[in-house]
Amino acid sequence: MRINGQYFETIWVDRNNKEKIKIIDQQKLPFHFEIKSLSTFNDAFSAIKDMTVRGAPLIGVTAAFGLYLAMLDKINNEKLPDFISSTCEKMKTARPTAVNLAWAVDWVENELRGVQSAEEARQLAFDAAVKLKAMEVGYSNSIGEHGLQLIEEIAQQKNGAPVNILTHCNAGWLACIDWGTATAPIYKAHQKGINVHVWVDETRPRNQGSKLTAYELAQEGVPHTVIPDNTGGHLMQHGMVDMVLVGSDRTTRTGDVCNKIGTYLKALAARDNNIPFYVALPSSSIDFKLSDGINEIPIEQRDADEVRFALGKEGKTQLVPNGSPVANYGFDVTPARLVSGLITELGICEANEKAIKKMFGK
Amino acid sequence: MRINGQYFETIWVDRNNKEKIKIIDQQKLPFHFEIKSLSTFNDAFSAIKDMTVRGAPLIGVTAAFGLYLAMLDKINNEKLPDFISSTCEKMKTARPTAVNLAWAVDWVENELRGVQSAEEARQLAFDAAVKLKAMEVGYSNSIGEHGLQLIEEIAQQKNGAPVNILTHCNAGWLACIDWGTATAPIYKAHQKGINVHVWVDETRPRNQGSKLTAYELAQEGVPHTVIPDNTGGHLMQHGMVDMVLVGSDRTTRTGDVCNKIGTYLKALAARDNNIPFYVALPSSSIDFKLSDGINEIPIEQRDADEVRFALGKEGKTQLVPNGSPVANYGFDVTPARLVSGLITELGICEANEKAIKKMFGK
Repeated sequence: MRINGQYFETIWVDRNNKEKIKIIDQQKLPFHFEIKSLSTFNDAFSAIKDMTVRGAPLIGVTAAFGLYLAMLDKINNEKLPDFISSTCEKMKTARPTAVNLAWAVDWVENELRGVQSAEEARQLAFDAAVKLKAMEVGYSNSIGEHGLQLIEEIAQQKNGAPVNILTHCNAGWLACIDWGTATAPIYKAHQKGINVHVWVDETRPRNQGSKLTAYELAQEGVPHTVIPDNTGGHLMQHGMVDMVLVGSDRTTRTGDVCNKIGTYLKALAARDNNIPFYVALPSSSIDFKLSDGINEIPIEQRDADEVRFALGKEGKTQLVPNGSPVANYGFDVTPARLVSGLITELGICEANEKAIKKMFGK
Repeated sequence: MRINGQYFETIWVDRNNKEKIKIIDQQKLPFHFEIKSLSTFNDAFSAIKDMTVRGAPLIGVTAAFGLYLAMLDKINNEKLPDFISSTCEKMKTARPTAVNLAWAVDWVENELRGVQSAEEARQLAFDAAVKLKAMEVGYSNSIGEHGLQLIEEIAQQKNGAPVNILTHCNAGWLACIDWGTATAPIYKAHQKGINVHVWVDETRPRNQGSKLTAYELAQEGVPHTVIPDNTGGHLMQHGMVDMVLVGSDRTTRTGDVCNKIGTYLKALAARDNNIPFYVALPSSSIDFKLSDGINEIPIEQRDADEVRFALGKEGKTQLVPNGSPVANYGFDVTPARLVSGLITELGICEANEKAIKKMFGK
């Protein structure tokens, strides 16, 4: 998608140096647009851990390129199998909740199975990362096409009045490579001339909504309004939301959806007001091993300072008195019973084990 | 309650000068403790409007003292009736949602009915304000005693483990005169040696939770943890909340509860997880004229800059890009069906018209 009118993806190989991977520094957005270079495994690991890159699909692709960068080290051919497996293990620890990270690492590791030399490993890892990136772009594009149908149906009922879509956090193209997951249907609808308006939850504590989603919607010219996370229920009670559309960091094979903390509260409000609640996700975000999202998905607890301070254009400002403890859970789980459907690259699927199994054959 | 070990109320008459009313500047808390003087009607009106004082009971008492300060003007005795009624009308416009404001103004106006001279008006208005203040303290104290029983019942089941209470915004003694509404039962329980722990919603956009509730709980030594507003649902799903306890800016005669934006979302999560959801309020917050909270209570829309910026110890920092619009609704309405009960000065009452009528005889 576009930034200042120029087309970008969130991660790419430097066109002059195949050993440098370029990313957009998402910690600096929306007030500064900066491109960063990754040259080593540690660069990629840190970029994931400190959220310079974030969003389940982008985390996975960055991890894949990080494994490729690891293979650029001088590795003794005999030690190669151990090096590959320990590097892959380490990469998986960068963040605990998004399943794409482990999925992408497993994918690359599988491509490297039986590899004989560091040189071969390097080439295969590079190819795997590039292929994974292309796959994620394709997934987002397909999610956009499938989700577009839902927006078109609502638009027909609304007779030209704006279709109001509420989203939480950033499941936009910045979280992916291009298009996004939750935003893909919105961009497709906007490009088709449908009158869409997006309610953007600011998404405390890190404000990915106000800082990233609002920014990318503005760059594409999509009408939107930023709201505090507390606001969605009131809007839904008053007929001001036609659809809730969010992403997912991990979804179980039974359709329980783990996403940014606060998503569950919006799902409850959508149900209470008969508003459709859809989750857009590539199948790489489905964890087919898990059946009980609330009890089985590990929820990352992040630094208290993310809550204690707000971080904005002018820097940090303290919101919590020194003597008061803080808790900072990164995600919550929306039970499948509250989910109207999953918008995936293969089509729209009910959020239950049978439908998911039928669509993905697993 | 105490600040730095010293006993305070939120509003008082200067002991050396009856024509000065003292308040705590709640815009500056928790990082600066400052006392402000009100000498005129406009001082009081502005203090309510700009939220130097806030919280339904405190707004009402400040309005009453503001009417007294108005009577200190040199008023022609013939023009007195008009002056009183226009002053009262104007005071009611300071903020639109809390019903206590209109209720307190009506109370003072009623005390002034048939008054003959400015001097008499002055004395009657002063007495009315002092009496209203004492009433509100009494209400909070009684709410505390009634709510304490609920906490004691939970404590018995928990066998010494902490009773975890989630609250939203500040319905603490800072919102009242002393004790608070939602916090009154908590302070009573803590003073009685019950192991209580409070989850404090930070309450964007103005952070009354992290700035005021956390501050006052810390000053009284009550264990607590500040959380983003997005967090409560996750905690409830994992058995980490025993009770939700909030205040109210206006409650209908049918038990619909208007409170700080986001309260409704917590009520939904409490219901979904079978957790009791109680609202603590003096009867001065009940609007007996209204039966449909969602459609009849006017919801204040506040300045977009409250959302666009976070305001903390180091000043303001911008969170939303310049090109993105913002909406800032101050309150939402929790339908009576989600409310386990109302904790009032007369006792605990079911949230329905019959029970409220029975308790208050209206």
